[in-house]
Amino acid sequence: MTRLEQQIQFIREIDKVKNIYRQTYLADGQRKENDAEHSWHIALMAVLLKEYVPEADITKVMIMVLIHDLVEIDAGDTYAYDPVGAETKREREVQAAERIFGILPTDQEGFYRELWEEFEDYKSPEAKYAHLLDNLQPLILNDAAEGKSWAEHEVKKSQIYKRNEKIEDTSLKIWRYIQDVVDRHIQQGNIKED
Amino acid sequence: MTRLEQQIQFIREIDKVKNIYRQTYLADGQRKENDAEHSWHIALMAVLLKEYVPEADITKVMIMVLIHDLVEIDAGDTYAYDPVGAETKREREVQAAERIFGILPTDQEGFYRELWEEFEDYKSPEAKYAHLLDNLQPLILNDAAEGKSWAEHEVKKSQIYKRNEKIEDTSLKIWRYIQDVVDRHIQQGNIKED
Repeated sequence: MTRLEQQIQFIREIDKVKNIYRQTYLADGQRKENDAEHSWHIALMAVLLKEYVPEADITKVMIMVLIHDLVEIDAGDTYAYDPVGAETKREREVQAAERIFGILPTDQEGFYRELWEEFEDYKSPEAKYAHLLDNLQPLILNDAAEGKSWAEHEVKKSQIYKRNEKIEDTSLKIWRYIQDVVDRHIQQGNIKED
Repeated sequence: MTRLEQQIQFIREIDKVKNIYRQTYLADGQRKENDAEHSWHIALMAVLLKEYVPEADITKVMIMVLIHDLVEIDAGDTYAYDPVGAETKREREVQAAERIFGILPTDQEGFYRELWEEFEDYKSPEAKYAHLLDNLQPLILNDAAEGKSWAEHEVKKSQIYKRNEKIEDTSLKIWRYIQDVVDRHIQQGNIKED
């Protein structure tokens, strides 16, 4: 197989992420969104909101968010507030990364695996910004869809605060925005105050 | 409205592109894909295949392809081989660009409108690479889905060659790959030789 053929095999394989559905509804509330749509949205948000996290290398962040959910082709989507799924998540996802990035030529396999591990590590400025986007986007959609997904899963304020505990340190402005949205949905009864 | 609120309004508005469906089937042939999925796929392809178009600035190409179909929120998707739709396409899309990018703060509106116009112009190395990706991705999916979309629309070899006439100049290696796929699907009866 030539190098280009290996790359095209990977391009075909990752098409499957368009069939991995998340728990978040589209802004119009009509259906849930899939990983490809979510990743497109946050890659564009990375550029739009870069002024709030100026220390992050925007090219790296874009590539990171474009690939961050590919492991879910094998591992499936683990809902943010699913403690049982969370226990086996890491193991399932590492195996998936091995198989999926393993389709690529070795140099590219290494590049994408490292970038995915950096995202998972949640330490570099790029990983922090990528996680901020990964959390902010479903919040914007849940807000637009009138809190439907939060209400369905009976999400508590403490769960949202726990999940977003590093956001304040990444961008105070965006953390304040998130707090405002959460407060509004507590008042509306979609998020439980605890 | 604050600057962040304007940006978030834009992020909510562009969610609609997830409901703009194209004529291309997913690789598994089960349903057609939408603009957000398509844009995610080609943004990632921009990074994967950059060695074939080394003169293009990859960051610019990624942003360009992430936004290139937003105008279809208002203008709809015009099928590549639809001569009637093509007549009014430009006018419909310019109006859409004005409204949609107009939601953003002025500096960002200007940046994205110029980038979209550069894509439409099809002259810079980045625009040429973006168009190559925009054409190659549905070809890879059509090939994976056994030529279903070509057969349904009775697409002719001359139409594909006309649409891809600038690809050879952008990357000869990828043009040869496209020719091979087309030849195979002529033999299989999915594309008409003319």
